[in-house]
Amino acid sequence: MKNRGTAAVAALVLGVAAGGVLAQAKPEILVKQRQAAMTLQGKYFGPLAAMAQGKAPYNAEVVKRNAGFLDNLSRMPWDGFDPSTKDVKSRAKPELYSNMGEAKQLISRLENETHKLYEVSQSGDEAAVKAQIGAVGKACGACHDKFREKQ
Amino acid sequence: MKNRGTAAVAALVLGVAAGGVLAQAKPEILVKQRQAAMTLQGKYFGPLAAMAQGKAPYNAEVVKRNAGFLDNLSRMPWDGFDPSTKDVKSRAKPELYSNMGEAKQLISRLENETHKLYEVSQSGDEAAVKAQIGAVGKACGACHDKFREKQ
Repeated sequence: MKNRGTAAVAALVLGVAAGGVLAQAKPEILVKQRQAAMTLQGKYFGPLAAMAQGKAPYNAEVVKRNAGFLDNLSRMPWDGFDPSTKDVKSRAKPELYSNMGEAKQLISRLENETHKLYEVSQSGDEAAVKAQIGAVGKACGACHDKFREKQ
Repeated sequence: MKNRGTAAVAALVLGVAAGGVLAQAKPEILVKQRQAAMTLQGKYFGPLAAMAQGKAPYNAEVVKRNAGFLDNLSRMPWDGFDPSTKDVKSRAKPELYSNMGEAKQLISRLENETHKLYEVSQSGDEAAVKAQIGAVGKACGACHDKFREKQ
């Protein structure tokens, strides 16, 4: 029971509801979580975009690390775009929720381009990496242009 | 994985911005980013804690996926605890910033326990995975108890 006790403490510490994995999170929590994933994608993609644009010196180690993080982060936001969240204040346009088919295509594109970036980053070919950073940026933008309100 | 922990500690102590290639991010942005990483750790650890407590059915595929995400997320918050952030409103206690030596030990512990969870999750040994979920929870709690304000 030691492990159960420990896990109970962890759940308490993290503010995890006792409902378990199948309980649907509240819409506000889903939005907070998806926005967190977007924030971190920005944190780790920003320096790569700067390198690809020549605004920062190329650093292969940073590229490898960030590309690995992004390969994970690019899979995290999407379950947060649940239909239950459509009335929660955010920059998601209403038409996102009625065009999930198109959204899913754009999501797959981002996931695929980001995974390619991770793979290319391992080779250390700077030109190929910079081209792929551009492809990831385009994939981000394609969905934002379509489904995110301008600020 | 000790090298990885050491790098995270170095970033924390030296206050190196994410990626190290851009100008230091504003304190408010650093806090937003570190809170985003904490939010996502909660998202992906919560279901594992529920499984370890027997409050949710054990699902090896979910464990593998979440453990992989957590192995990445556990390395993301720490450069956000830059000394420049100490006056930004958050739940971080003031003594965190004057006890960076202790904080970095607790950070390394979390990173190491989370990486062990990722490794154990690949084997599919349910008892070992549940024990390691407990170890990760204790590592979260050790730092929260010391350096995070109660809500």
